[in-house]
Amino acid sequence: MTENLRGLPERLGRIAYGGDYNPEQWPEEVWAEDVRLMKQAGVSLVSVGIFGWALVEPRPGEFDFGWFDRVLDNLAEAGISAAVATMTASPPPWLAKLHPETLPRRADGTVLWPGARQAYCPSSPVYREHATRLVSRIAERYADHPALALWHIGNEYGCHVRACYCDISAAAFREWLRERYGGIAELNDAWSTKFWSQRYDDFDEVLPPRTAPTFANPTQQLDFARFSSDTMLDLLRMEKAVLRAATPDVPVTTNHVPLAKTLDLHRWASEVDVVSYDSYPDPHDPQAHVLAALSYDVIRSLRGGQPWLLMEQAPCAVNWRERNGVKQPGQMRLWSWQAVAQGADAVMFFQWRQSKGGAEKFHSAMVPHTGPDSRTFREVAGLGAELAETGSLVDTRPDNDVALVLDWESWWALELNSHPATLDQLDAFLAHYSPLFDANIGCDVVHPDSDLSGYRLVVVPNLYLTRAETAANLTEHVRRGGHLLVSFFSGIVDESDQVHLGGYLGPLREVLGAHVAEFWPLADGESVGVSVLDSAERGVLWSEDIVADGAEVVGRFTDGGLAGGAALTRNSFGDGVAWYLGTRLGAEGMRALLDRVVEDSGVSPVVAGLPAGVQAVRRGGRVFLLNHNVGSVAVSVAGGRVEIPGFGVEVLAG
Amino acid sequence: MTENLRGLPERLGRIAYGGDYNPEQWPEEVWAEDVRLMKQAGVSLVSVGIFGWALVEPRPGEFDFGWFDRVLDNLAEAGISAAVATMTASPPPWLAKLHPETLPRRADGTVLWPGARQAYCPSSPVYREHATRLVSRIAERYADHPALALWHIGNEYGCHVRACYCDISAAAFREWLRERYGGIAELNDAWSTKFWSQRYDDFDEVLPPRTAPTFANPTQQLDFARFSSDTMLDLLRMEKAVLRAATPDVPVTTNHVPLAKTLDLHRWASEVDVVSYDSYPDPHDPQAHVLAALSYDVIRSLRGGQPWLLMEQAPCAVNWRERNGVKQPGQMRLWSWQAVAQGADAVMFFQWRQSKGGAEKFHSAMVPHTGPDSRTFREVAGLGAELAETGSLVDTRPDNDVALVLDWESWWALELNSHPATLDQLDAFLAHYSPLFDANIGCDVVHPDSDLSGYRLVVVPNLYLTRAETAANLTEHVRRGGHLLVSFFSGIVDESDQVHLGGYLGPLREVLGAHVAEFWPLADGESVGVSVLDSAERGVLWSEDIVADGAEVVGRFTDGGLAGGAALTRNSFGDGVAWYLGTRLGAEGMRALLDRVVEDSGVSPVVAGLPAGVQAVRRGGRVFLLNHNVGSVAVSVAGGRVEIPGFGVEVLAG
Amino acid sequence: MTENLRGLPERLGRIAYGGDYNPEQWPEEVWAEDVRLMKQAGVSLVSVGIFGWALVEPRPGEFDFGWFDRVLDNLAEAGISAAVATMTASPPPWLAKLHPETLPRRADGTVLWPGARQAYCPSSPVYREHATRLVSRIAERYADHPALALWHIGNEYGCHVRACYCDISAAAFREWLRERYGGIAELNDAWSTKFWSQRYDDFDEVLPPRTAPTFANPTQQLDFARFSSDTMLDLLRMEKAVLRAATPDVPVTTNHVPLAKTLDLHRWASEVDVVSYDSYPDPHDPQAHVLAALSYDVIRSLRGGQPWLLMEQAPCAVNWRERNGVKQPGQMRLWSWQAVAQGADAVMFFQWRQSKGGAEKFHSAMVPHTGPDSRTFREVAGLGAELAETGSLVDTRPDNDVALVLDWESWWALELNSHPATLDQLDAFLAHYSPLFDANIGCDVVHPDSDLSGYRLVVVPNLYLTRAETAANLTEHVRRGGHLLVSFFSGIVDESDQVHLGGYLGPLREVLGAHVAEFWPLADGESVGVSVLDSAERGVLWSEDIVADGAEVVGRFTDGGLAGGAALTRNSFGDGVAWYLGTRLGAEGMRALLDRVVEDSGVSPVVAGLPAGVQAVRRGGRVFLLNHNVGSVAVSVAGGRVEIPGFGVEVLAG
Repeated sequence: MTENLRGLPERLGRIAYGGDYNPEQWPEEVWAEDVRLMKQAGVSLVSVGIFGWALVEPRPGEFDFGWFDRVLDNLAEAGISAAVATMTASPPPWLAKLHPETLPRRADGTVLWPGARQAYCPSSPVYREHATRLVSRIAERYADHPALALWHIGNEYGCHVRACYCDISAAAFREWLRERYGGIAELNDAWSTKFWSQRYDDFDEVLPPRTAPTFANPTQQLDFARFSSDTMLDLLRMEKAVLRAATPDVPVTTNHVPLAKTLDLHRWASEVDVVSYDSYPDPHDPQAHVLAALSYDVIRSLRGGQPWLLMEQAPCAVNWRERNGVKQPGQMRLWSWQAVAQGADAVMFFQWRQSKGGAEKFHSAMVPHTGPDSRTFREVAGLGAELAETGSLVDTRPDNDVALVLDWESWWALELNSHPATLDQLDAFLAHYSPLFDANIGCDVVHPDSDLSGYRLVVVPNLYLTRAETAANLTEHVRRGGHLLVSFFSGIVDESDQVHLGGYLGPLREVLGAHVAEFWPLADGESVGVSVLDSAERGVLWSEDIVADGAEVVGRFTDGGLAGGAALTRNSFGDGVAWYLGTRLGAEGMRALLDRVVEDSGVSPVVAGLPAGVQAVRRGGRVFLLNHNVGSVAVSVAGGRVEIPGFGVEVLAG
Repeated sequence: MTENLRGLPERLGRIAYGGDYNPEQWPEEVWAEDVRLMKQAGVSLVSVGIFGWALVEPRPGEFDFGWFDRVLDNLAEAGISAAVATMTASPPPWLAKLHPETLPRRADGTVLWPGARQAYCPSSPVYREHATRLVSRIAERYADHPALALWHIGNEYGCHVRACYCDISAAAFREWLRERYGGIAELNDAWSTKFWSQRYDDFDEVLPPRTAPTFANPTQQLDFARFSSDTMLDLLRMEKAVLRAATPDVPVTTNHVPLAKTLDLHRWASEVDVVSYDSYPDPHDPQAHVLAALSYDVIRSLRGGQPWLLMEQAPCAVNWRERNGVKQPGQMRLWSWQAVAQGADAVMFFQWRQSKGGAEKFHSAMVPHTGPDSRTFREVAGLGAELAETGSLVDTRPDNDVALVLDWESWWALELNSHPATLDQLDAFLAHYSPLFDANIGCDVVHPDSDLSGYRLVVVPNLYLTRAETAANLTEHVRRGGHLLVSFFSGIVDESDQVHLGGYLGPLREVLGAHVAEFWPLADGESVGVSVLDSAERGVLWSEDIVADGAEVVGRFTDGGLAGGAALTRNSFGDGVAWYLGTRLGAEGMRALLDRVVEDSGVSPVVAGLPAGVQAVRRGGRVFLLNHNVGSVAVSVAGGRVEIPGFGVEVLAG
Repeated sequence: MTENLRGLPERLGRIAYGGDYNPEQWPEEVWAEDVRLMKQAGVSLVSVGIFGWALVEPRPGEFDFGWFDRVLDNLAEAGISAAVATMTASPPPWLAKLHPETLPRRADGTVLWPGARQAYCPSSPVYREHATRLVSRIAERYADHPALALWHIGNEYGCHVRACYCDISAAAFREWLRERYGGIAELNDAWSTKFWSQRYDDFDEVLPPRTAPTFANPTQQLDFARFSSDTMLDLLRMEKAVLRAATPDVPVTTNHVPLAKTLDLHRWASEVDVVSYDSYPDPHDPQAHVLAALSYDVIRSLRGGQPWLLMEQAPCAVNWRERNGVKQPGQMRLWSWQAVAQGADAVMFFQWRQSKGGAEKFHSAMVPHTGPDSRTFREVAGLGAELAETGSLVDTRPDNDVALVLDWESWWALELNSHPATLDQLDAFLAHYSPLFDANIGCDVVHPDSDLSGYRLVVVPNLYLTRAETAANLTEHVRRGGHLLVSFFSGIVDESDQVHLGGYLGPLREVLGAHVAEFWPLADGESVGVSVLDSAERGVLWSEDIVADGAEVVGRFTDGGLAGGAALTRNSFGDGVAWYLGTRLGAEGMRALLDRVVEDSGVSPVVAGLPAGVQAVRRGGRVFLLNHNVGSVAVSVAGGRVEIPGFGVEVLAG
């Protein structure tokens, strides 16, 4: 999937630095100071126009680009590049006034009205027509503008409206289904509609999974998740077609919200030239940097390790949690370098100047309400100076031995209702990722059907939906000498959410040398004793009756109704080894297990023996040591000893 | 209310055994194995066609019964009887497509769409017309089929759609009210509409209790609960009329969901030939068997002790809780025998073969995903073998000395809003039933207006709505020498939810020899000291100012604002004794009280002195000892000593 | 704002006593007993007809006042005065039947149906037309009735329907906005619509803040709160105009629900002749009397200390909480005297006779279900006798040295979403008021723009929205020698919810001698050490980076990321002193701070050195000592020692 970035690295020449720039919120008098302060802060790239639609098209079909011309001219003059937005993220109020049917609806029929943002139905032909016209005008007008470095299509697709259930969306869903299944008989088979008298006689009868008396058909729900992701992807494709026609050499991107299940990013990533990501770790959460690290590994892996753009982060606090903690002194710098170390080629913020009014006025900005004489602006300018000298990092890629497997389709299916227990895909992921992070094992996060030949160890935290091809890919990985760790409730259903019969684990039975006879979910608050290799641990959430069909039983339940039964197996298969875990261990147990699996597979950490909370990442011939602790730590590296202050960053050759 | 079962016991000849059989989910190749495995498992009765509508009527008015003919023929050939469903439980998607007005609506106007099941308005004439046509076709076609043993009307009425608030339902509600009240003046009086300016000038103005600015009129709510139960009962009557016309000698039933307040089962029970019940105790709840026991006593008592059919239970786990625990080895057998001991003449499961897809694919089945070589199928077959030899139990009835009083109308009224405290009818019931269960006292659960002459002790956990006739019935019971225990917030209102004035307890004042001057509900987490006979206990939830008008005060509040006041009274009245309790004691306190009341009344347990967790039930000349503990217990019975294993069952003559 | 009460004090001649009288709920036979018992209970004033509409106008335009004539005649004959309701609080069901568009809608579109009360859209011209006609008929008919003492307009405006979001309301909102802003450009500026592409091209595009994909525009929300309060105030003005025309000399009032943010009572108070208040402290809450005390200080201050009417309270328990505790013996009397001491000229109840049916039948009444032979009626009659001799208290006003500042606009704005932390205006108020209450400091609660010259100390618990005039008023207060205490998140935005730039505290920076550089909200459960003057305390919820610009730092954070930074400052300014607190201290910390601030300002308590839980209030030349403890306390006063029983009241000259 890796392609070149259409010249973006060459154009930027360094790790880009900047943020969303919304000068329309301010009188033009302020704009000169903006540019002056940007230069002072080392800004090289800004995103402009994201919410500009209502200003550039104040009335349907009447355009006023004058102010935006001046913004871009100012930037060009100052030598600052622009990621120019297509402005379609939020239609002006006149669209809903003229065409109320463009408003999205929830599953229960509630209309989502204007007054915030993103109030449009993604399937609406009226929205699409207006958006296309707007993008055409923008593409035409700015195709040759010297500030233009990158097209920024839409903004945070699916952030607030994850799906629309209106009648227009229903018709579009039916078209999508007709495309997928061909005939209604095939849909009936895939959806198991003989259950609960759901057989459809014609596509005309099919609906989105609107509020129903009880659990809606799970395959209907799964297909609607696919459709909703694809429908928003159509919007991106529609805009891209306009932009490519006008500017075949300008790269396009769209920025994604923090790790979420709404969009199948594997499908999205192939449609852009570079992936952009918005990262908002919660400073009140002491493990926020681990989830951030996971998300950066996910994002970087979407295009095979190609660098990505950190398109948004907060300079200090956000404003949309119940209590919004600040990034303490040094923490914004640390987390920015974390992104760079994990593959970002840009470090950008929402937003340049803190709004005086509106719904995000208490979201921090590079220039805060108190002005440039402030901690935040000083830290912003300090980081800007550091990033100016990063040319050698640009467009470099990692080489990791471990891959975790993530599949959005399986995520959607896993979190459907009416399962043996309510499971959470991200929880499952973090349970497996955290020990790897703590041990400073470099990880990629890949689609399960991707080429695994470069990896020594593949970890499958939970892959409920496992297609036959997927299982074959994992099996082949082990056969060829790779190592594999699979956790419970994997290999359960096919792409239609239909169970692989004859013993759970289905198509993974062969490689794992085991199957599962029964699931025994644990009650909330219940735990079960588990021996794992040589240590006594406790499992929560889940247990199950594992039948070893050749695998070695290396862990057993030690109490409860399954006492004595297998909890962890290890199967030598082909030239490799496949592990299977039938419960969720606590943090210590997961660490003990992962340490052993990693050791077994011959994978080495980036740096061994670091103190807790110190992340080591290799990029572009350097090793970044990131101290996520509040206090300083002493680190022995390369024969010497380095003291890294709290929230400090140390860069070594390596 | 007891009638004969229209020959069903003779036809079945034993405790029937089987489950829901939905072969339409599988290719016909599988059907032969189904019948073979059924024989292996000792299956004698299956329910067929419950969700068959969309298949037998793929388009409006076009019927295709071929596949269903073959299913019934296969069963007949194998000597397996069929409870043939009327298939009306869930209309096909085409009904909503053609007639969107058949979709039900919630109180807030939300439409409940197709995609799950039960998506029809029970008042819809269109639904009724289609359902009637379907039932006529089925009745006509299968009237003489040799497999037909029983008609299974609808399925779990009111499970997901407890009431519909749409305009069609509103019109039907008005008709129902016109029938009940005759004139609008009578409705205004009953509903106390002079309060809050609610007077209706005409029936046309009346609505269901849709979402309102605050508490809707309570009598409107109560009548709507009556209407909703009656409306669904009309559906049953409608289908029954068709079936009776075609097959006057075939019994009819409908299966009810676990103990719920939606339907007034006292009214429903008289319309069927045999009551059917679906039982889903939660294996994660260590007291699940007590609630199950209570529900079986309720269900058996609906038709005066006549045996009932356990129409559904799970062979192992269900799939609709957040965490679904398994029935551990032996537990399914134990709980099945519990139902038989408490009067079931059938033990059946949902469902025969575990679905590959759809919303219940993780609900366990007699033949699980792993196939017949499984714990579940082995336990199923084992129980089947045991049940084959149960002819002597069939159609036998208990003879209990204790009755608890349950009235759905009072349940509805009790749980309305705007009361002194939020009370829960089932909690109140369990608080009184559990000590009786623990002491192995055989209980019936009867309507308060029923003939009480056969009972020594009547327990009224909470009868907020008490009609004058009801009070007279209870009073007469004591006058004639019976014992009575009434707990707080009983005797409060009449059938229109209007307070019996002049001192609470109203029409129960005479028999109880006391009245209540004021309710003093306790705060959440608050408790109050109570002396109960000779023990010091704590009360929660409620206290009150009881004025003894002749009753002896045998318990007092010992702290708080009511310290020194009566908490428990005992009144000798006529030839009997009436107790009254003005608080909710903890488990120990309730046990102490019930032990004393039972002793006082001269009632004996089935077996005395059993270890905790061992249930003793007498049926058909045997005593069933059911060990609900995980571990084994030693029991001294009939001069000997028996060891009953965990989850074990011991059957004695008795 | 103080005006005379249009002769009401002279007419009543004493602290009025009575309650809501709804005889229409009862047969006329009961009415004679009503009047007899009222005389027995010392009743002098009753509210009549509040929910009479459906009875006096049974069909549109057909009026039947006969029964109401008889009610008023009976009262007049007995010498009991009447607050005659305009009966518009709840329209009859026929209104919604004829005009469904009069029903209100929630933000998500849910219709609020009839069946409870208040089911009308306040902007509905149809409702207004019908209401006006009704009020005209009532005014005309009873203008000269001898029982008429006071017009009772509407009832509890905004209690259940705080705002309506329907299309009619939307149109009215647009008219209101046009009036407020003149042009759409001004609205766009005020609402900061350049953010998120929200620019309106015309007023026609503007909507209420209906359910949106995410946070609706905050100024839209704020203006909608203003509009909703103003719209209901229009209803009051509409009725008042009719009444004034018919009876220029009869005072008008409307009763307000317990301290709530729905209505801007500063705007409402100037429209009535006397303010009426409904008070429902929760007997289960041991601090309920403190919130009650605060609310009475608020209500009394609305018209500059002019006496107010306690229009409703419960004689014993209410019925709308989950668990409704009783007022214990003496508690109703105590809380009634508390209201009188804090300025009430009437003590009234909801309601006279406890309903037999309907949604409030379990709400206590002066004559309970058990009848007059009851604790409640005896306590009611006892208090009635006491209140008969209170002529000298009538129409007297307090003279307090301390004012707290409350502004409904700031309350609305503070509790909008998307803030640094979720804050609660009443919590902030109670945190500052409770220490003052405990120290028996007499307080008023005033609008921040009111004349502060009479106060030594002004306390600003939280004034997020601070207009420039407001800041000037507070600044001038200190300049002239007053003391001021301001707590965090004050002075943040202007009337359009736009931030005062250049350092938080904005226009309060000068008087406080400090500004805030950054907010550091604390996580839920987190606390931070704070030195306050000489004591070590803990702060929760909030901390911040305070920069002293001349103020003395008298408290510092002692741990966390701000350790060493200012937490409390004291600024000598002009002839006065201004304190600023940057966190929320616990109860002890707030007490230590307030004690010091009070001492500093030279303010004295009503009575010093009272035991905890004893409230001292001065009114009309007396000092009321109110013992809110369950047990008795010994008090040393005026050289002697008085024992006040639990829930007792002692009145001293003073």
